Amino acid sequence: MANVLVAGVGMHPTGRFSDKSYRDLATVAAVAAVEDAGLSWDHIGVLFASHTRQGISAGQQVAHDLGLAGIPVVNVENACASGTTAIHEAATWIEAGRVDVALVVGFEKMPKGVISGLGEPGSYEDRMGLNVMPALYGLMAQKHMHRYGTTVQQMALVSVKNHQNGVLNPYAQYRKAVTLEEVLQSRMVADPLTLLQCCPTSDGAAAVVLVNGSTVLPNPLRAVRWAGSAVGTMRFDSDESEVSHRTALAAYEAASIGPEDIELVECHDAFTIGEILHYEELGLCPEGEGGRFIEEGHTWLNGKVPVNPSGGLQSRGHPLGMTGVAQVYEAVVQMRGEAGDRQLAHWPKTAVTHTQGYAGVAAVGVLQR
Amino acid sequence: MANVLVAGVGMHPTGRFSDKSYRDLATVAAVAAVEDAGLSWDHIGVLFASHTRQGISAGQQVAHDLGLAGIPVVNVENACASGTTAIHEAATWIEAGRVDVALVVGFEKMPKGVISGLGEPGSYEDRMGLNVMPALYGLMAQKHMHRYGTTVQQMALVSVKNHQNGVLNPYAQYRKAVTLEEVLQSRMVADPLTLLQCCPTSDGAAAVVLVNGSTVLPNPLRAVRWAGSAVGTMRFDSDESEVSHRTALAAYEAASIGPEDIELVECHDAFTIGEILHYEELGLCPEGEGGRFIEEGHTWLNGKVPVNPSGGLQSRGHPLGMTGVAQVYEAVVQMRGEAGDRQLAHWPKTAVTHTQGYAGVAAVGVLQR
Repeated sequence: MANVLVAGVGMHPTGRFSDKSYRDLATVAAVAAVEDAGLSWDHIGVLFASHTRQGISAGQQVAHDLGLAGIPVVNVENACASGTTAIHEAATWIEAGRVDVALVVGFEKMPKGVISGLGEPGSYEDRMGLNVMPALYGLMAQKHMHRYGTTVQQMALVSVKNHQNGVLNPYAQYRKAVTLEEVLQSRMVADPLTLLQCCPTSDGAAAVVLVNGSTVLPNPLRAVRWAGSAVGTMRFDSDESEVSHRTALAAYEAASIGPEDIELVECHDAFTIGEILHYEELGLCPEGEGGRFIEEGHTWLNGKVPVNPSGGLQSRGHPLGMTGVAQVYEAVVQMRGEAGDRQLAHWPKTAVTHTQGYAGVAAVGVLQR
Repeated sequence: MANVLVAGVGMHPTGRFSDKSYRDLATVAAVAAVEDAGLSWDHIGVLFASHTRQGISAGQQVAHDLGLAGIPVVNVENACASGTTAIHEAATWIEAGRVDVALVVGFEKMPKGVISGLGEPGSYEDRMGLNVMPALYGLMAQKHMHRYGTTVQQMALVSVKNHQNGVLNPYAQYRKAVTLEEVLQSRMVADPLTLLQCCPTSDGAAAVVLVNGSTVLPNPLRAVRWAGSAVGTMRFDSDESEVSHRTALAAYEAASIGPEDIELVECHDAFTIGEILHYEELGLCPEGEGGRFIEEGHTWLNGKVPVNPSGGLQSRGHPLGMTGVAQVYEAVVQMRGEAGDRQLAHWPKTAVTHTQGYAGVAAVGVLQR
C-alpha cells in the first residue's frame, strides 16, 4: 500500500464574496496548494472537486480555469463531509496506483439563510423536522443535557473558544472574540442553541495536494503523512453519536493510532453541541463528559488536545464543500509550525480532522509527521 | 492489482414516474443487482451513488432505504458521465484493497424540458450558447457535415437503429420503431437535429455489484471482468472529439485491448451525431467515416460491432446519473447471453461502455469475459 503524503495546502479566505464566483475562490486555493507543494501543474494526475450545490460539472469548470487538460476530474458530494470524503477518494486513487499526485479542491458559495428543506418532501427527515439543521442539533443538545447534565454554559464555551481562536486566523470569516454572556444572550435559534452557537453562512475554498510517498518533493520535510481515513453512514436517530464514533474508530485503525495519540483536532462544530459530542465520539473523553472537558480547558489552544485552533466552523465559517479540506489545511500548518499567531507551542505529531453531515454521513482523517 | 469483476446487475425500467421518488427507483435497481450477484447485503463494503440533481446526500438516503448501516457512501457527479465515473471509483476502491464488494447505483428523476442553463451565468459555455445541449451537438453536426460530407440521412439512421433495438428491450422508455422519414420529418430542434434525433427526458435507475476477483461467488461463471476504465476532461471546443478519444485510449491501455477487439459498444447517443462521432473517437472506424459506418450496417444488431443494442439514450432514455450504469447492465447481459429478444448471436467477449457530458467530461469502461 502506498504511503500517502499531504505535500501542499492552500486557502482562499472565508467570508461572503458576492462579486466572486466559486471558480474564483477555488482557483486561488488550488494555485496556493500547488505552489506550496512546489510541484508543477503537469504533475497533477487527478482533480477531486468537493462541493454540494455549485451545479453540474463544477469541478470540470475549475479544471478548465486552472488549465488542467486531459486529466480525470471527479465531483464528490457528501453533504458537510464532502471535503474529507474527497481527500479520502484522492488517497484511494494513490493507494490503488492510479496516480502519484492528486489535487483536491473544496469550495462553496452558500445560498442565503438557514439550511433547511434538505431531502425530498415526505422523506423521513422532512416529516420529523430533521432537515432543518439547527432543529436537529437543538434536539441533540436537549438530549445531552437531559442524559448527562451538560449545561448551556458549557456549550457556549465552545463558541467563546473558537471565536477566540478565529481572531488569530487571517482566513477566518469572523475574527471577533465573543464573551460567554454575548453567546448566551444572542438570539435563540433552536433551544438551547443561540445564534452565536450556530456557524455562519459562508463562501470559501481550500485545497490540498496529496502525493505518493515515493514522489520527489522539493521540500520533503514539509510533507505530512495522510496516515488513514474513513467515511461512514448511519441515520442520526439510531443514536446521534454512532456514525462519527464508528467512523473515527475505522480511521484510527487504518492509521494504527488510538485516541491517546491525538494532539490536535479539527472537528465539525457547526453547532456548539456538536463539538461537545465529537469530543466523546472521537475518544478524547468518556461518553457524557464532553461538557466538562471544555470547561476544564483541555481543548483550548494551550490545552492538552487543542480542538479547532482555526476557529472551526463557528468562526472560520462553513462553506460546505470547503470545510473538510480547510481542516486539513489547519492541521498541516500547525504540524509544520507555520500557523502564525495561533501556532500551538507543541507542534502536533498526530492530528485528526472530522466532518459530519446531513443524512448521517461522517468522515475522519488522521495526519502524522 | 486486484482483478475486478461485475458480479451482478439490475435495473428499474426507464420512463416517467411522477408517482415515484428517486429512492423508489434506486432501491429496485439495487435489490435486483445484489440478488443477481447472489450475495447477501452484509457483503457490501461501500455504496457509490451516481446522480446529478437529486439533492444533498441522496446516496445516503438510498443506503438508509436499503438498510445499509455503517458503510461508506459516496455521491459522485460527473454530468452525463456520472455513472461510468462512479463505477470507476468503485473499481479504484477494490484495487486499493479498501473493500471487496462495492454497490454502484445510478439514478435520476429529470426535470421537465430541455437541459439548458448549465453552468454559471457569464461562464464560457453560457456566453457561447454551449450550455444548451442540442445547440452544442447541432454545431458538432454541422462541422462534421462540412468537413466529411456526413449526411442528415446517416445521422437519422442512428435514431432508426436505436429505436429498433429499443423495441426489444423491456426496460426502454420508447419501445416504438421509427422510420427514416419519421425521424427526418419530426420537428427541428437544432439544425440538422430533429426531435427524433434527441434523447428523451427520463427517470430511471440501474445498479451493478463490483467485487474483488478473489470473492467467492455462487455463480462465478456469470461474472464479467471490469478490465479497465478511465475518466477524462477537456473542453469540447479545443476539438470536440478529443476528450472521448483520449479517454478511450486510456481505458483500452488499462484493459490491454485495442479497438479491433471490441465486439459490443454502448455509447453516448444523446444526439444522433454523437454516436457517429463516437464510432470515430472509440476507434471503430477512421476519422470522418462515422456516417458511412452506420450506413454500411456495421453497428446494427447483426453488424460486426453492434452499438447500443439496448436502444441507447435515444430509446432506452437518459436519466443522467443512470446512463453509464445501465450501459454496463446491457453489456453484461449480452456477454452472458441473457439479453432475450435483442441477444446478439455472438455473445461478445469484449465490450466497451462510453459516456460524455457537460463541460467536457468523458468516461469509458472495458468489460471482458
